[in-house]
Amino acid sequence: MKGIYLSTASQSWTLRDTISLDKHSLHSEGRNVLLTLQIPSGLEKEEKIEVYFLLYRWSVPKFQRERGSMERVYIHGYNSQENIRLQDQASTLVELLHSDTFYPAGSSVLEVGCGVGAQTVPLARHSPNALITSIDISETSVQRARRKVAAAGITNVHIQQADLFNLPYERDTFDHIFICFVLEHLSQPLEALQRVKPLLRTGGTITVIEGDHGSVFFHPDSEAAHAAIQSLVELQRQAGGNAMIGRELSPLLHHADYSSIRISPRMVYVDASKPELVEGFTKKTFTAMIEGVRESALRARIIEPVVFDKGIRDLYRTAEGDGVFCYTFFKAVGKK
Amino acid sequence: MKGIYLSTASQSWTLRDTISLDKHSLHSEGRNVLLTLQIPSGLEKEEKIEVYFLLYRWSVPKFQRERGSMERVYIHGYNSQENIRLQDQASTLVELLHSDTFYPAGSSVLEVGCGVGAQTVPLARHSPNALITSIDISETSVQRARRKVAAAGITNVHIQQADLFNLPYERDTFDHIFICFVLEHLSQPLEALQRVKPLLRTGGTITVIEGDHGSVFFHPDSEAAHAAIQSLVELQRQAGGNAMIGRELSPLLHHADYSSIRISPRMVYVDASKPELVEGFTKKTFTAMIEGVRESALRARIIEPVVFDKGIRDLYRTAEGDGVFCYTFFKAVGKK
Repeated sequence: MKGIYLSTASQSWTLRDTISLDKHSLHSEGRNVLLTLQIPSGLEKEEKIEVYFLLYRWSVPKFQRERGSMERVYIHGYNSQENIRLQDQASTLVELLHSDTFYPAGSSVLEVGCGVGAQTVPLARHSPNALITSIDISETSVQRARRKVAAAGITNVHIQQADLFNLPYERDTFDHIFICFVLEHLSQPLEALQRVKPLLRTGGTITVIEGDHGSVFFHPDSEAAHAAIQSLVELQRQAGGNAMIGRELSPLLHHADYSSIRISPRMVYVDASKPELVEGFTKKTFTAMIEGVRESALRARIIEPVVFDKGIRDLYRTAEGDGVFCYTFFKAVGKK
Repeated sequence: MKGIYLSTASQSWTLRDTISLDKHSLHSEGRNVLLTLQIPSGLEKEEKIEVYFLLYRWSVPKFQRERGSMERVYIHGYNSQENIRLQDQASTLVELLHSDTFYPAGSSVLEVGCGVGAQTVPLARHSPNALITSIDISETSVQRARRKVAAAGITNVHIQQADLFNLPYERDTFDHIFICFVLEHLSQPLEALQRVKPLLRTGGTITVIEGDHGSVFFHPDSEAAHAAIQSLVELQRQAGGNAMIGRELSPLLHHADYSSIRISPRMVYVDASKPELVEGFTKKTFTAMIEGVRESALRARIIEPVVFDKGIRDLYRTAEGDGVFCYTFFKAVGKK
């Protein structure tokens, strides 16, 4: 492979507030490409270095990750803000929401509001050596979550019934807190974030993931579909929740006095090129969820049946042929 | 740095439909990290290899790019779908929209509808050795674009007045076509995509970037602000355009018979942690644009002045303290 030339084009890719590499170089010998990084001095102890590399051949990306870590792998203050956005390629919701949340071996993680364990399974799979405590207020949910986690062969999760507003743990018990699809149901989301904070060790992180039903748009557009979605938003509001809480994660975490807050919007973009998401998200998750509130919405006289039913038909229409469906989740990470 | 251990954790990061690396390894010696990739055989001629690497120290990402290319760098069929989503960190709109669009040295690129050259400058800067032809139907715009490009010291762009529905070029003239913020103004966007296609060589790409005013949401939410935005959407509709065309790029490119279509939504997420975007996008780009149609919207009796003015105030409110503003652009790439 003689005739190689090397050029650095880092300026447009350099992120703000980053560390500098002292040196780096790229060479090729035959089919081998050698990349040398010189790590800044002062990274001698209890540090973890992760090298992500992407190799492009033509337009086909290959992404792999390797880690080089010190023997003492436990790193206090490690956090999961390392957001590499591969959402264009994410084929499942789990991948989109959870693939960049992982906690180091030995760290203790509190999952607040685990429900029946739907998020507990990917959480535990991505951090197989973290020690996870998952709580939910409902004893029935806790039992179902235990069965789900056991069935998945997961052994690093302890599940117990507890009220997030009255948690049975000492101060500074956890290295990290994880909350997913919980705040949207609470009338006091800010208080919830404040209540869990003392349980977190200084330097630990809180990760919050929520959807936002006001972020939805689609093709073909439909007023009836927007009205049907709005009827769920209104029902949730009447129940004390907020189905559009995703956009508010930044002010909520600020008001709860977390620091180093980073917000990462995750749009689920669905068209016919992503059949798994057409079935798994547009139809079976989102539209089915809206459809599920039909009786409650009609009983509460929020919407006319003819409009609601047209709205549902129009939502299913976005899952056909040339249809497009967009929804945005928000992931927020803050530090104590 | 003895005590290093290496682990591969590629499974959750491996994209679908990717090539395989024959081998890779990671070693460290002192402060040097050595990454070796073995490129699959059969990449001997006219191939370009790009290695992107990220180094994480704690949670602080450092992203750099290096290229190693063969002497004969022109690659027919190269395309710009290499979407690495770093939008969480993008501090400017140009970075968000253009940082992953680059064309190889010697390739010929047609920019359709360059206007006054606002997108021509980043386009040319990212592909300094491509040969770019930019056209616009307005002679006045063409002259302004020429001055803008010259002032930026750019020498690889040729700008001329031409009508995209009647272009003065032979078939198979261009390797790539680039269209940004143009289709939204056309009453026949599909025909536009069909008209430019013969000019593209087989295997060449078309890149289309458009916004979508129906994708906007913000905190605090405001009906008046949505109504003010809707008045611009309605004016644009009355003028024959479509301010919500972003979501339709996939069906449009399909109907125009392009292949290998990939859609990449780019959300601009703005909160107080991104002061450049608060000023540069929420206030001076989006809200100023809506504010600019006040007289036309009132004259067309689309909206009451008191509602419009409250809407504008509410949009500026989203740029304050705990405000949040979200808007989504779409980038689409297709192949002939």
